[in-house]
Parts: sequence; C-alpha cells; structure tokens
Amino acid sequence: MQALVYTDTQKLVYREEKNPKVVNGESIVKVFASGICGSDMHAYHGKDNRRIPPLILGHEISGTIDKGKFAGKKVILNPLITCGECEYCKNNREHLCNKRIILGMNKPIERQGGFAEYVSIPDKNIYELPKDLKINEAPIAEPCAVALHAVELGEKKILKSLKDSKVLLIGAGAIGLLCGLILSKVKNCKNIVIVDPNDKRLKESLKYLDADGVKPDSKLIINDNFDIVFDTVGLEVTRQQAIRSISPGGIIIHIGLTQPSGPFDFRKATLQEITFIGTYCYTNKDFEKTLQILNNKKIGSLDWIEYRALREGASAFKEIHDNACSAPKIILTT
Amino acid sequence: MQALVYTDTQKLVYREEKNPKVVNGESIVKVFASGICGSDMHAYHGKDNRRIPPLILGHEISGTIDKGKFAGKKVILNPLITCGECEYCKNNREHLCNKRIILGMNKPIERQGGFAEYVSIPDKNIYELPKDLKINEAPIAEPCAVALHAVELGEKKILKSLKDSKVLLIGAGAIGLLCGLILSKVKNCKNIVIVDPNDKRLKESLKYLDADGVKPDSKLIINDNFDIVFDTVGLEVTRQQAIRSISPGGIIIHIGLTQPSGPFDFRKATLQEITFIGTYCYTNKDFEKTLQILNNKKIGSLDWIEYRALREGASAFKEIHDNACSAPKIILTT
Repeated sequence: MQALVYTDTQKLVYREEKNPKVVNGESIVKVFASGICGSDMHAYHGKDNRRIPPLILGHEISGTIDKGKFAGKKVILNPLITCGECEYCKNNREHLCNKRIILGMNKPIERQGGFAEYVSIPDKNIYELPKDLKINEAPIAEPCAVALHAVELGEKKILKSLKDSKVLLIGAGAIGLLCGLILSKVKNCKNIVIVDPNDKRLKESLKYLDADGVKPDSKLIINDNFDIVFDTVGLEVTRQQAIRSISPGGIIIHIGLTQPSGPFDFRKATLQEITFIGTYCYTNKDFEKTLQILNNKKIGSLDWIEYRALREGASAFKEIHDNACSAPKIILTT
Repeated sequence: MQALVYTDTQKLVYREEKNPKVVNGESIVKVFASGICGSDMHAYHGKDNRRIPPLILGHEISGTIDKGKFAGKKVILNPLITCGECEYCKNNREHLCNKRIILGMNKPIERQGGFAEYVSIPDKNIYELPKDLKINEAPIAEPCAVALHAVELGEKKILKSLKDSKVLLIGAGAIGLLCGLILSKVKNCKNIVIVDPNDKRLKESLKYLDADGVKPDSKLIINDNFDIVFDTVGLEVTRQQAIRSISPGGIIIHIGLTQPSGPFDFRKATLQEITFIGTYCYTNKDFEKTLQILNNKKIGSLDWIEYRALREGASAFKEIHDNACSAPKIILTT
C-alpha cells in the first residue's frame, strides 16, 4: 500500500509500505480520510517519545471495512485501544487504562496509524458511520470526543451551570473551536471569549463560533474573571494566562500538551480554591455521544475543515508547522 | 492589655498594647487560648505579605465574651470575616468572598489577632463553646475546619468512596494529622500512608492516627498508586511527590502554602486526567460541622496538642522554627 511515513524530525515521505496483516478479532480498513492532530505535529517536531520514526502517524480515521466481519461497511474508528479488563475499563473510564494505546504510536507497543491506504484495528473499536455524517468529515469525531469529554468534565465539577458561566477558551485550533461549538450549541453557553495569537485562525473560527475572538493582550481577558478556562494549548504562557484569568472557585481544564512541565501560581490556586483538571482523551460513551452530536448536526457546519490529498500530506504538515494555515483542521484523503 | 507582638522577622515581643475598641456589631473577647498556625510561622519568617510587622498574630481562638451581646459566654471564634453580600457569600462559599479577611492580618485591612488578652470580632463570627469541648482545646476547631473542608472537597470529586480509597497524606503537622483523623475516624478510610521527614512528629502522630507512617524515601510511597493525595505542606518537593504518587484519574488536594509557585508535571496531569484542587479555608457550615465533630469526640483524643503560656510564646515559635518540636500543634494560653 501507499502510506505517508514519518521518517525523521520534520520529515514525511509518501512511499510503498507493507499492507497490515489480518489479525484475529481485528479488521482491515480501507482508509478514506485521516485528520492531522496536534499530537501528530508534536511527533513531527521530534518531541513525542511515544511516536518514534519510522512510523505511520494518524488516528482520526474514517473508511470502509476491507477485510473483517463487517466487510463493505462504511466506518469511523475509535483509535483508543484498551485492555477491557482492568478496574478503569470495567468502570467506564477506559481512557485511563494503563495498557491503552492509540493508533499511530509505536511506544510501548506498535500500532501503525491512518495516514495510509489501509489500517488494522480491533473490531470493538469500529463504529458504523452514522447515516447523516459524511465520510470525509467523520474523522472530526475523534477530536470532537476529546472536546466533549473536556467540556463535560468541567460541567460535572462546576457549581453553577455552564449556560450561565463565563468561559475563556485559550487556542482557536480544532480542540479550542470544538470545545467552543459544544459549549455554545450543545450546552447553550452565551458568554465565551476565545483567544489566539494567530489572526487568520481566529477569524476562521469566528465564522462558526458565537464568541468574542481576541488576541492574548486583549482587555477582555480580565483577571480573576472566568468561571471556567479551557487551555487547549498547554504552553507555560497559556497556563499562566489560565491561572491569572480564572475566578475564585473556578475550574481550569487543561487539554494541551505542548510544554510538558513548567511553573504555576500555586499560591493563587490554593488561596482561591482553583480546580485544575488535566484531560486529553475520552470514554467509549463520549465517542458514541459524539457520533450522535455530529449525525444530528448539533455543532453546525463543518466547512472549517480543509481537505488535502494524502500524497500531499508532507506539505500540509509543513504549512501547519509554518503557522501558514488558517484552517483549524486539515484532513488527508486517500 | 498584654500581647505577643510580631515586631520583625523571627521576632516576637510580649508587651503592653492598647485594648481593642468596642465597635458596633462586634464583641470584645477575653482570650483563653490561641493556637499557632503554619501561616503564623510563614509570617514569622517574613514571607507573608498579608501580615506585616508590627502585628498581633493568631486566629485559632477560644475565650469568654468580655463586652458584647453575649457577655460572660464561653466562645470559639470563626476568624474568617466575610462581606455577607457578594455572590460567594450568598451561595455558601463565604471562604471565596473577595473582601474576606482573617484575624491576625493587616493587609489589605487591619485585624489584630488572638495572641493577646483581648480581641475584637464581629458577633456573626462567634460560636458558643459546645458543652463537651474544653475551652483550652477549642482553638483546634479552626484548623480542623480547614481539614474537614479539604477532605470533603476530595470526597465530592472522587469517583469511588473515600472508605475504599488509597490515601497519601504529605506532612504530619496539624493539618496532615487532622485530615488523617477525619479520614480515618469520620470517613472510615482504612488505607492511609502519612509521610514526614521529622521522625519525632511522625511518631507523635501515629499514637493517634491509624496509618502507615513513613519517611519521604519510603518504598510504601509507590508511583501512580494513590487515589487521593493531600499535600498539606506545599513545597516544590512535596508537590512533585504528590504528582508522582497519584494514580490515573486521581485527585491531589493542595492545602499548604510554603512555596507559592514552582514547576509541575503537567504532562502526567494531562495524560492521566489528574484533578488538582487548591484549598486553605472553610465555609461557615464546615465550621459548624467541625464543632459537632469535636463536641462528639469523633476524632478521638486531642492529647497531641501541647500548651504553653502566651508570655512564653516567642520560645514556642523559635522551637517550631528550629524543628525541635514534636507536637503537631502548640496552643498558647493567657
């Protein structure tokens, strides 16, 4: 098969690779579309110790079953593969299973990803494509499940309702925009500020999201003001913005992984009873709920997705790297 | 009146001071006993910008009403004075009121503390001493309310019950011990490890608390193991121990304020969905519930409290500073 292979830091090569082998309990999927995630970019920058080249990246995948129980069916994949037997898996917290792996990773266990013509995946991770969700748009289900999980983590912990909460979204990438769309269109949140230093991306997001879009130095980002802050970037500078702008008793939801450690104002967190929750995945239920949300067009038009041919994937990665891209999400199609 | 006055970094002088004036809506309390808190030590070390010398410290106070509506009554004081009118105060979260002040602070507003013969306090902050609580022991209600609030914050957020949770308590000072006693005796928690580098203090705590008491390098402090960790110290090194030892999906309750900022493993917090909650105070309801707990002897003997004369207060502060003190709490009596 042809595949886009991550061969070295900032290097991707479209080349011939071996087809995945048929494994018991798994199916081979003919990939139709596969989205580029922030974590793929993290790998591309040579900063992800779970994704070591050579490797086929990509875990936001739709396609058609080529070999397996449901051959011929159009499907969307849940790329989070868990053991099914541990305490977490048995208690609907599969995303915390300590044997979990995601497609397009090779540490500790190899699982080739979706930037290829074919990919292998356990049958239990396969969902039939809902009838009103287009196969090219379907890979958005994966980051949308991440965003839904993050929003609902906040919803469970916040004392007032999300509807009446002042929200700050840091980052207008796919996760920031998807959190915003879920907050606005599913949770009826009326008071959203979204911040991003990239003007083009901010403008693109505001075509779809009912929010105030601002640069990081905006006067709308008032200190001690927001009931809930979503940091979808995870840089030192965004975490500092999060802790500055959160109100007493407020909640910070931290989804980004850009800088893994760094300082934090623990004094404010302590004196003002701030809750900080890290998150980056979703449960099986979140994934199923996301498919319903998308099938019912609950988050509106997905025209903010940009499509490129898989064989041109290297230039898409380069454009994202160069910050030359306004689209919050690029999906590669075979 | 005589008072123990904080006059400069690591200096306390027992000397004559002006009596507090009678103010409308307040009472003058003849102090019987007043406990030394970690935050008083923080001030003593010149590190608290809310407590600038000269100042009478102390906010864990019992006594008798000298002048006021309830003259002659034995009382215990809730030292947290709030506006009563803001959104927080009206929603049972008085501890987050942004006009809140505590006795024994002078920034932004001056409120002399309890290391004196007399102290003035709003009537609404006065509670009658419950009949089975001794007046010398009563100041422990304040740190006990801090611990109760912290434990119940954890209890509200944890998915399994506290009873079945593996708990790590960092620090065997008053807050660590009180959290432990509430967890063990009120919440029926069976699986507690308490860690402190101070052997004497650890041994003293273990006379009262059913837990494994260990030094920070112990093999019992297993990585990714504890469902909930209470960091009652708030040093960089204790926060790092907290994030290392917390299990996926677990909760860190951060009560200490020793080092106000510093690095943190946000990668683990994000990948493992860790919840970090800062806390250092309590609501009025917590304070009332604490008085019932103490009155009903629910946390057992309070013989771990050590008593000194107020006039000898300077040497008590010095001993705590020198780490020469095994008692988790020293209370000064007039």
